[in-house]
Amino acid sequence: MLLHQFFKLRTIARNSQSPFSSLSISLSSSSPMAAAAASSEDSLRKALADKQSAVDAQGNAVRALKAASAAKPDIDAAIAALNALKLEKSSIERSLQSILSVADTRESFRHAVTNTLERRFFYIPTAKIYGGVAGLYDYGPPGCDVKLNVLSFWRKHFVREEQMLEMDCPCVTPEEVLKASGHVEKFTDLMVKDTKTNNCFRADHLLKDYCNEKLQKDLTLSPEKVAELKNVLALLDDFSPEELGAKIKEYGITAPDTQNPLSDPYPFNLMFQTKIGPSGLQTGYLRPETAQGIFVNFRDLYYCNGNKLPFAAAQVGQAFRNEIAPRQGLLRVREFTLAEIEHFVDPEDKSHPKFAEVADLEFLMFPREEQVSGQSAKRIRLGEAVSKGIVNNETLGYFIGRVYLFLTRLGIDKDRLRFRQHLANEMAHYAADCWDAEIECSYGWIECVGIADRSAYDLRAHSEKSKVALVAQEKFLEPKEVEKLVITPSKKEIGLAFKGEQKKVLEALEAMREKEALDMKAALESKGEVEFEVCQLKKTVTINKKMVTIQKEKKIEHQRVFTPSVIEPSFGIGRIIYCLYEHSFYMRPSKAGDEELRVFRFPALVAPIKCTVFPLVQNQTFEAVSKLISKSLTAADVSHKVDITGTSIGKRYARTDELGVPFAITVDSESSVTIRERDSKDQVRVDVEKAASVVKELTEGQSTWADVWSNFPHHSSAAAED
Amino acid sequence: MLLHQFFKLRTIARNSQSPFSSLSISLSSSSPMAAAAASSEDSLRKALADKQSAVDAQGNAVRALKAASAAKPDIDAAIAALNALKLEKSSIERSLQSILSVADTRESFRHAVTNTLERRFFYIPTAKIYGGVAGLYDYGPPGCDVKLNVLSFWRKHFVREEQMLEMDCPCVTPEEVLKASGHVEKFTDLMVKDTKTNNCFRADHLLKDYCNEKLQKDLTLSPEKVAELKNVLALLDDFSPEELGAKIKEYGITAPDTQNPLSDPYPFNLMFQTKIGPSGLQTGYLRPETAQGIFVNFRDLYYCNGNKLPFAAAQVGQAFRNEIAPRQGLLRVREFTLAEIEHFVDPEDKSHPKFAEVADLEFLMFPREEQVSGQSAKRIRLGEAVSKGIVNNETLGYFIGRVYLFLTRLGIDKDRLRFRQHLANEMAHYAADCWDAEIECSYGWIECVGIADRSAYDLRAHSEKSKVALVAQEKFLEPKEVEKLVITPSKKEIGLAFKGEQKKVLEALEAMREKEALDMKAALESKGEVEFEVCQLKKTVTINKKMVTIQKEKKIEHQRVFTPSVIEPSFGIGRIIYCLYEHSFYMRPSKAGDEELRVFRFPALVAPIKCTVFPLVQNQTFEAVSKLISKSLTAADVSHKVDITGTSIGKRYARTDELGVPFAITVDSESSVTIRERDSKDQVRVDVEKAASVVKELTEGQSTWADVWSNFPHHSSAAAED
Repeated sequence: MLLHQFFKLRTIARNSQSPFSSLSISLSSSSPMAAAAASSEDSLRKALADKQSAVDAQGNAVRALKAASAAKPDIDAAIAALNALKLEKSSIERSLQSILSVADTRESFRHAVTNTLERRFFYIPTAKIYGGVAGLYDYGPPGCDVKLNVLSFWRKHFVREEQMLEMDCPCVTPEEVLKASGHVEKFTDLMVKDTKTNNCFRADHLLKDYCNEKLQKDLTLSPEKVAELKNVLALLDDFSPEELGAKIKEYGITAPDTQNPLSDPYPFNLMFQTKIGPSGLQTGYLRPETAQGIFVNFRDLYYCNGNKLPFAAAQVGQAFRNEIAPRQGLLRVREFTLAEIEHFVDPEDKSHPKFAEVADLEFLMFPREEQVSGQSAKRIRLGEAVSKGIVNNETLGYFIGRVYLFLTRLGIDKDRLRFRQHLANEMAHYAADCWDAEIECSYGWIECVGIADRSAYDLRAHSEKSKVALVAQEKFLEPKEVEKLVITPSKKEIGLAFKGEQKKVLEALEAMREKEALDMKAALESKGEVEFEVCQLKKTVTINKKMVTIQKEKKIEHQRVFTPSVIEPSFGIGRIIYCLYEHSFYMRPSKAGDEELRVFRFPALVAPIKCTVFPLVQNQTFEAVSKLISKSLTAADVSHKVDITGTSIGKRYARTDELGVPFAITVDSESSVTIRERDSKDQVRVDVEKAASVVKELTEGQSTWADVWSNFPHHSSAAAED
Repeated sequence: MLLHQFFKLRTIARNSQSPFSSLSISLSSSSPMAAAAASSEDSLRKALADKQSAVDAQGNAVRALKAASAAKPDIDAAIAALNALKLEKSSIERSLQSILSVADTRESFRHAVTNTLERRFFYIPTAKIYGGVAGLYDYGPPGCDVKLNVLSFWRKHFVREEQMLEMDCPCVTPEEVLKASGHVEKFTDLMVKDTKTNNCFRADHLLKDYCNEKLQKDLTLSPEKVAELKNVLALLDDFSPEELGAKIKEYGITAPDTQNPLSDPYPFNLMFQTKIGPSGLQTGYLRPETAQGIFVNFRDLYYCNGNKLPFAAAQVGQAFRNEIAPRQGLLRVREFTLAEIEHFVDPEDKSHPKFAEVADLEFLMFPREEQVSGQSAKRIRLGEAVSKGIVNNETLGYFIGRVYLFLTRLGIDKDRLRFRQHLANEMAHYAADCWDAEIECSYGWIECVGIADRSAYDLRAHSEKSKVALVAQEKFLEPKEVEKLVITPSKKEIGLAFKGEQKKVLEALEAMREKEALDMKAALESKGEVEFEVCQLKKTVTINKKMVTIQKEKKIEHQRVFTPSVIEPSFGIGRIIYCLYEHSFYMRPSKAGDEELRVFRFPALVAPIKCTVFPLVQNQTFEAVSKLISKSLTAADVSHKVDITGTSIGKRYARTDELGVPFAITVDSESSVTIRERDSKDQVRVDVEKAASVVKELTEGQSTWADVWSNFPHHSSAAAED
């Protein structure tokens, strides 16, 4: 994954670039509801402005009547009308406020989730006894187990299913690799400093916070101002340092804590730097992604695959970003686990033999068109998305489908999952197409997986710098006469015309795809010159006939040598897990109704512990049976926990519900036990000898609770769960 | 794991501190053989010295005869006797050389292993296309799979078997944690610089190389010199910078590449340093071990375990050591995977309820006594080792047994595995006992697992620095009158007597165990003063009556509050895997006898791929059947690879033997296939539908090859493997 996408992975709430404002996301809403909220916000703001005018006018009328010493009944009537208008205005204000205060609801929900997570030691700030460090968290036992389960399923679902080649490279990465990839130069965020305390802030965050705060709290904004602020939010990610600095000055934004003036924004490189070896001369960085370890080894991977395409390599491991000012808890951290796939493919054939297996999936997609035209995400059949060209090619489509299956099987709510296509200005110039799996949580829509067709960019960059050809060959059975489209820019003419920008123009010309090049050729022949967009320069330049020759040439060739394209699904494991926590969390009243019990409805696949074993009461017989069952569960490799405390069975159930343990075995006799399912709270009675194997089959997906429910006698224990 | 042990984990060939010299390790020898080699080396050196004296004497005799113009026959006879002596001397020299040249045999074996590993992409130097970096390696697909398999078995064998609490903490660690643990101050190696080029070297390595080279190449060394050099090798790890510097000067050791003079040795901290956040003010380090993440979270872990002891926490992850000059390939690297267990236990009760399960294991142990008295490792029953007090306590013994089972089940040769106890001078002063699992490979005996009873040191260090009590409580059923031994040093007296050393004396007094303290009390009462060894000062000091009060006091207490002891098994995963490669590697002639085929005899548990599927010849039917079987294997989650190339079946078998793939399914008909076992090369015939499940049961250990061999018809294919 490269430059442009970094900003993507680091840009959490995508709403700034989508027609959804950050205000329009309600906690439990699916996208259409959010869109409805957005439109009612607009109409309420308009109604409020109208009502304010009416109040003003009526106020003037009252004052005029008074000035003219009108009759008291007339004045009273006018005042009554004014008061009525004010009441109506207040009512509109309340409505608007209630929409805008969705943020509070989201925050209190988030608080309930994170409070449970911290209390049950899913995570804890790193080195908490020393005061912690921003952006670093330890996963405690249940959090660690959830992560291991997610990664283990990831390997089964992706690596083994497609027989991918998995790599394992160090975190410490020599500088050369990250120079070639562009990270040393461009992996930056814009920073401002408090001019007095030297505290550092992310420039875009300050501007974003300012706009959001205004939009949320200031009900008197004019429609023009609302539009302006929303526009700033939408363009924020593309602002240059100068543009950002100008906006910060214009809005009078100061340091949040001290109100001191701020410095101009300047780029801060987000990689952790270190020195390799004792001399201090060799610079290393902690890798910002795992992908580069695969790219630099392409030659050996290709050989390992019998010199055949397509194939995929994968890597799971820690990645690092020295965030300027981390916030949003587990979502924006300085060290995190990435799981990345690099699927190498012949650029001339991006079909996928297994696409048919996912073609009939239908889920929320949010194509570029819909975003630009202000529509919302909609359910599209994947096969249709590919056949209509909404998704660039079958391989990209195949991975989108597989990612959908992966996330939903983990327990992500399919109504709060969408695949959003990158807008033209979000994508790197070389990328063919890019989709993000976004999951909605209390922070908004979060990019959790990026699925990009990165063309040949990465392999070319490393080939160029290392002088090692990272290419594939296709041997022809017979020598072939090949017609090739050859684009030959004239360096001299382009140099003269574009001076310092010539390199980017050259690159862009050479990177043209066939259709684009043929269109240019036709235009140059008919009109002599043509407008040409250079993405990297963010502008359009004029290309004339002398600057480039485009022609088809015939050659005899024995093989094709080419740089493979790479399609890259890249998973932010910590983000997926955090969203999963929110989607799995719910509260239900205790039996006595006196408290709210918290439950994670993890599927067994994900649950940190699969099963608990409880002796109903403290007695030697029940404890002996519990030990026996524990032994069988260990032998069957089912992770479990025995709780022999004397606490009431209801409390023990509640305790493990909070951890998302799906099944509980309660020992209440020597010969048989009950098995309880977490969400239904239903129980069946099973022989002691069978208990472990019933749970094993349930947790490994060989049977469902419905099967068990129909095969075993039901057990009702009305008194238990109090 | 802490200070002293670092040197341990970083000291690879333990021979420098054991009676085995590095010369005495033969490639395939078990310890007794190595010991025999060592003793024959000594006797040969003695015989050579004696023969040299005889040659010298006879030479003098010949010269005397000539000088005295003796009769020719007498002179001729004397010369003949001299020549005979010289011949005998040469023969002894050859014998000695052949013992000393074991190193060459080891090197050529190692070369065969690493060559196969690199060629088959088990590993590759990191960023090889940019020239690589010393001490950093990428694991390619088979290496990565082996590592995942080892870790997966580790979790099953340790974490789930004992229901340990697994943690997952970041690599980037704030400075406070590593200050408290002592790493910031003491995690160093002694370095010397080439005074002209500034190249850096490890001082102890240069001295060690010098001694080893002398011992190996110089046959004329006097017995005194041999003893001196061996003594230096034995003491090397304990040398102060001054002692090391003096020896380097005395032996005239210079920079290996340039022969330039060297600087004095000085400590170099081995942690990779970085800055957290943009201000540059917050220092962080890449963790040198994973254990600290567990210690700082003790309070939450204890709570998580229901405030009960004993329990164990575990962590698997990357650790980092910025080695001065890495060598020994995969054994000494700058980034590596550690798997660590911290088992917290009441210091007053280190029994283990499951010790009986391992008590009857018998394997090579190398207790302190045997090392000091020049004996060799011997087979001891674990139960006996604990009952005789050779191993300090049951819990330590239990883990030694579990580690033995773990390593041998992975495929480590039990005859090249020993548990070596730390000598007194190797152990930290606070450690109760410490054993290393050492595995013999071509580099000598390698410490791969450390199993230490670290007492309460780590938790106390963090309690003290963080001011957070990391303690456990035992509530008494009834309040108890407790007699406590209270050691009260007089800070004033000790300060006066020991000045700058007072802190270490104080610590050592307070750290005395009950018996030691009572002995001191008695001695002080009878003699008024006593000699007391302060390990940290490496010397003995005199303590008098005024300096310390030791007395038993009675108190009424409702609970005991205490700092738990920790028993720590710490696994260097990369080292275990490298030794496993060597132990699994063998060569066998091809059928035609024209080449040596290389095989890794990995157990299925470890093998990177469990099974290959080969259509016997390229044809549509066989390929269709292969696809079908592949699909069943994927569904059963058995990692496998289909090879449809037209290469001969023998070559395809050889290819996968090199990867250690245990089973191969060859499709030679529509209805049935053959399954081949790697090491015996035996084949059985199995129905197509059953193939996947037969392999699944084999690889998951539900059946053995012997079972399969007796249940299915045998297939002989004499022609296949050529």
